[in-house]
Amino acid sequence: MNKILLIASLCFTTTVSAVDKPNVVFIFVDDLGWKDLGCYGNEFVETPTIDGLARSGTRFTDFYAAGAVCSPTRCAVQSGQNQARIGITAHIPGHWRPFERVRTPQTTMALPLDVVTIAESMQKAGYSTGYIGKWHLGKGTQFAPDKQGYEFAMEIGGPQRPGSFRVVNKSDVKPRDDQFRTEFEAELCRKFIRSNKKNPFFLMLSPFHVHIPLSSRSELVAKYKAKAEQLGIHLPNPIYAAMIEEVDVLVGEVLQELDAQGLTENTMVVFTSDNGGLYRRYDFREQADDDVATQRPLRGEKGTLYEGGIRVPLIIKYPGVVPAGRESSQLSISYDFYPTFVALAGGQLPVNQTIDGIDLMPLLTDTVKNIQRRCLFWHFPHYHHDRPASAIRDGSWKMIKYLDNTGDVELYNLSEDISESNNLIETRPSRKADMLVKIQDWQRDTTARMPIPNPSYDPARAGQWWSRGSGKPVNSDARKRFPATELEPK
Amino acid sequence: MNKILLIASLCFTTTVSAVDKPNVVFIFVDDLGWKDLGCYGNEFVETPTIDGLARSGTRFTDFYAAGAVCSPTRCAVQSGQNQARIGITAHIPGHWRPFERVRTPQTTMALPLDVVTIAESMQKAGYSTGYIGKWHLGKGTQFAPDKQGYEFAMEIGGPQRPGSFRVVNKSDVKPRDDQFRTEFEAELCRKFIRSNKKNPFFLMLSPFHVHIPLSSRSELVAKYKAKAEQLGIHLPNPIYAAMIEEVDVLVGEVLQELDAQGLTENTMVVFTSDNGGLYRRYDFREQADDDVATQRPLRGEKGTLYEGGIRVPLIIKYPGVVPAGRESSQLSISYDFYPTFVALAGGQLPVNQTIDGIDLMPLLTDTVKNIQRRCLFWHFPHYHHDRPASAIRDGSWKMIKYLDNTGDVELYNLSEDISESNNLIETRPSRKADMLVKIQDWQRDTTARMPIPNPSYDPARAGQWWSRGSGKPVNSDARKRFPATELEPK
Repeated sequence: MNKILLIASLCFTTTVSAVDKPNVVFIFVDDLGWKDLGCYGNEFVETPTIDGLARSGTRFTDFYAAGAVCSPTRCAVQSGQNQARIGITAHIPGHWRPFERVRTPQTTMALPLDVVTIAESMQKAGYSTGYIGKWHLGKGTQFAPDKQGYEFAMEIGGPQRPGSFRVVNKSDVKPRDDQFRTEFEAELCRKFIRSNKKNPFFLMLSPFHVHIPLSSRSELVAKYKAKAEQLGIHLPNPIYAAMIEEVDVLVGEVLQELDAQGLTENTMVVFTSDNGGLYRRYDFREQADDDVATQRPLRGEKGTLYEGGIRVPLIIKYPGVVPAGRESSQLSISYDFYPTFVALAGGQLPVNQTIDGIDLMPLLTDTVKNIQRRCLFWHFPHYHHDRPASAIRDGSWKMIKYLDNTGDVELYNLSEDISESNNLIETRPSRKADMLVKIQDWQRDTTARMPIPNPSYDPARAGQWWSRGSGKPVNSDARKRFPATELEPK
Repeated sequence: MNKILLIASLCFTTTVSAVDKPNVVFIFVDDLGWKDLGCYGNEFVETPTIDGLARSGTRFTDFYAAGAVCSPTRCAVQSGQNQARIGITAHIPGHWRPFERVRTPQTTMALPLDVVTIAESMQKAGYSTGYIGKWHLGKGTQFAPDKQGYEFAMEIGGPQRPGSFRVVNKSDVKPRDDQFRTEFEAELCRKFIRSNKKNPFFLMLSPFHVHIPLSSRSELVAKYKAKAEQLGIHLPNPIYAAMIEEVDVLVGEVLQELDAQGLTENTMVVFTSDNGGLYRRYDFREQADDDVATQRPLRGEKGTLYEGGIRVPLIIKYPGVVPAGRESSQLSISYDFYPTFVALAGGQLPVNQTIDGIDLMPLLTDTVKNIQRRCLFWHFPHYHHDRPASAIRDGSWKMIKYLDNTGDVELYNLSEDISESNNLIETRPSRKADMLVKIQDWQRDTTARMPIPNPSYDPARAGQWWSRGSGKPVNSDARKRFPATELEPK
């Protein structure tokens, strides 16, 4: 192994020749939480393929999504920057509570084309690039993945149920009538891999799974309902469990195709999620929604800056280069992929574009034992599943500073309190002061957009969600339950 | 002349050798309106030096500031982009009316360091760079001009009156106690020019003049007060006229220093303004403010998208290259300076940064007769001197689309109606439709931030200005008059 690692590390400090360039398959699941996989301790959901991926690669315990919701993390992945710089701080177009304590900034509505995406950098390094799945970085053809460096660009909109999804802006590529979305995504992945087996490629697979609406194939739902009943388990929701297994199957399909094309040894497979798992829809209504999952022992869920909202799975497999069966507790985050993939490809980072990420290759190949990073920052100045907040992780310390004019600040020592249950803010004044300054400096340096006071704050109406488009309240009561399986009528 | 122009045009299509590189002195006056100079038809104010500049260079009749207020246009100048892309759409930090019809987006609080500024591009072309005056593209040392490509960076804060201004973040450079700001600015310009006479340089002089508070030296104020009384003239305000003459003197000092150093022939001098002239302060109070100026025949003032808010003077002098005594009605705008200066310097435009501007050199040197440009766009989604609006100039047509949910749209034919007095929106349905689509497409392509409906719209309080920082109404009644001259007590 030492010899292989030595070769590998030499490889990454010099230019990788075209024939040696490994492929990258980047699987970026939607809303999958830290506790949603067998290899991350979930005892209910069955994820044999992903667990196998972890056994043959490195599994990160302290990997973070750059954002607590989708578009921000996607922005970070594509740009290599914390999304606060670009202003995509909420999912596009974002939620809105006009009568809350503060007025929140709007999110940038698309990833600007000036941003050199990871795909564009991989292209420059000689890679074919493919995008399959959810994009969520700008509506309309002019900001679609094919304008952002992906030659094979299959943006897909809509949920899992057959007939409910379609390829965006492409009428000539259609799923079969009975095809589930993950099946269609697998088919497109197979197609892309086969077409590019003779040249280095970068494939980003971004399924809509396991985003709500809760909906999966009937056999799997039946299986997990029976299992839940047998075990007397409430969460994860059986439908959600079925959805995760569908992701496991999707991952299996991709790995099989790599194997069939003889590419397993020369392909880095990366598996992660865009944000933490969901407990309940932000405007939960019993008649329309079910509870989804818990991330216990982590606190919080998607849309919060507690660990449950941002700590997510990361597995990296690259046979013979990245050690198998290893666990890493190094601090890493979504914008690390950019410099990591570019280094792997022997490419160049873009000029005039801050890259906040750190190349993980030296860590992955054991060239270094520790990433030279002390702090990670988050900025989510929106009402969603929690109040507007910024956060910092500084070593094992975590601070959440609410940006809603309450002055609320929370401080946790994750090494002793992964559940963020013991707020130490009153007992650690100097650490508090230091971390507050770090957050403030970082907000300023990134030109992070901040909430402002709301002169029309109205406690009685603060909880109302409104639509920016219509300028009217969102009628959550009108929402209907989405069919749980393909057998239920729509 | 033809021979000179031929040589010049050859020069700009090939690389300019180091010894040939002309200097650029870019004089960027604050709030100077289109009608504020003798050479633009002002019969009250005396601007002999600037009028002379126009006689020895080309004077543009249809040049526009990219923004209706300062920071946006400054952003456009530094970046070569329409500021809507970066989000600096209001002066930093911007005004705020929380009870108006719409909630307006916040402006980006600083020019991000990733932006390759005109100074950085000039540096790369081998130029020494200097900045003297008002910056207004981010508070604090980390966004100061010395971080944005200006080696000699003298950011100055405060108005004209001796003792009222200082060099920002530099305690070792101080004006004399009796020195007016324009005098100090002239001294710094002289110093920079002398230090760089042997190498190509780019100097941006950005005086605070003629921004309010109305304040000028006593002799000049006395002179214009007497003149106004004699002529029975109300506007321009005599103090304002005195301020403009002080700018004329400042320009003269710079030209004299260029002459003294033998640099006149090899220096392009550009004179312009950041936005239209002011009529009245946005929260005008009689006890504190005077009327400032009118831009008649242009409608509107600073902070509006009428011609008076955005059409400004532009004079370009470059002996032997740019024809003398010429007038040009070509459509040009603040972000054209970037590619123009870079072309003049034989430099390269930045990669990964959209340059919305057009290189004016071919036009200036008669290589082409017309700029290949049909449309200009503005985006000012804020309440200031008018309601939030976007605007387009398309040939001789101008449309202002208000973004305040009223649906108000105005259409003018500037070739017949420079005063924008005859709204043709009802009589030109197809032109209306076409221009509305152009505005909408442009807003989308630039990810321009849009106002949203305001559920707390309150006509009775709509006119209130509030402070974002304090979350309280601004008490305009508490403002006091600034001393009109150095002789008045403060």
